[in-house]
Amino acid sequence: MYEGPVQDLIDELGKLPGVGPKSAQRIAFHLLSVEPSEIQRLENALERVRDGVQFCVVCGTVSDKEYCRICADPRRDRTVICVVEEPKDVQAVERTREFKGRYHVLGGALDPLSGIGPDQLRIRELLGRIANQEDGVDVSEVIIATDPNTEGEATATYLVRMLRDFPGLTVSRLASGLPMGGDLEFADELTLGRALSGRRTL
Amino acid sequence: MYEGPVQDLIDELGKLPGVGPKSAQRIAFHLLSVEPSEIQRLENALERVRDGVQFCVVCGTVSDKEYCRICADPRRDRTVICVVEEPKDVQAVERTREFKGRYHVLGGALDPLSGIGPDQLRIRELLGRIANQEDGVDVSEVIIATDPNTEGEATATYLVRMLRDFPGLTVSRLASGLPMGGDLEFADELTLGRALSGRRTL
Repeated sequence: MYEGPVQDLIDELGKLPGVGPKSAQRIAFHLLSVEPSEIQRLENALERVRDGVQFCVVCGTVSDKEYCRICADPRRDRTVICVVEEPKDVQAVERTREFKGRYHVLGGALDPLSGIGPDQLRIRELLGRIANQEDGVDVSEVIIATDPNTEGEATATYLVRMLRDFPGLTVSRLASGLPMGGDLEFADELTLGRALSGRRTL
Repeated sequence: MYEGPVQDLIDELGKLPGVGPKSAQRIAFHLLSVEPSEIQRLENALERVRDGVQFCVVCGTVSDKEYCRICADPRRDRTVICVVEEPKDVQAVERTREFKGRYHVLGGALDPLSGIGPDQLRIRELLGRIANQEDGVDVSEVIIATDPNTEGEATATYLVRMLRDFPGLTVSRLASGLPMGGDLEFADELTLGRALSGRRTL
């Protein structure tokens, strides 16, 4: 619709997730009105990510060093590993300030239809961490924090089977139930069913 | 929250209009998973816009040549000028396929509190176009299509005063009223008031 570079930019922005044609247009015209140095900063940030992002050699989350901040922190409990799908899930658990252990990022969830089997995920690395006693400390618990959807549940089931062979290892899964601050009336049947079957005696 | 280049990219994306922290994170992780060439294309598009975008010397809309497609088109009616605030408004009017004249982009609307007076808008250029008879053709009508908000209305009022001096020039304003497909019940008082005062005899 527009001519030349502006339309090209709108097209490229429109390919980003969650950016529709209207937002792409809005962002493009915003960028037309800002200082060139501001666009330059965005370009530089894109270029650095394009050049390649480093991942922590232990847990696999994004990192700017060999070991991420969490894995490098001696105060974190090495006996507990929280297994998540993606680096953003690490941040979600960190925000709770409830977890003092370390993480393991799988890089996704089992999804055979999309060609993602156990070998595409960092499952071997997880088993290695448990078998090899990181820094001479035994891992005593693995918390499986994959998403509560079909793929995440399948991954959790698979992991439970793989981890059964380690004697003395506790394997747990995040609780499913009603979200806090939610309304029972509006909960879907699956969530309410989970909340019922997982009820706690008071 | 994240380390290194990923967080920098999230920060830069979060500065864009309509992109919150969650969307910025989503876009950044999306870009981590795509081909580097795709990021490169976005960078190139940004760079070309940063290098400067050309504006049509006649109407002031974004263009990749001296004259935009509309101003260069001999089939467009040179006797009618539609005055809009921004280039995206040109596209909005074009989408109606109802207007066959040419445009004039003001580059904003009068907003004294933000320091935008008549000299910050392309009003002098508009008066020049009308006074100088583009290509020897008299302009017979100016349609003021500024936004139906405080600034747009003030700009329209100002333009009407400036254009009064041209003999034989019709100055019109887009109709205000109920949006098509809307619901009378949910119209705000201002819109419904405009619809009433602008009612048409059938």
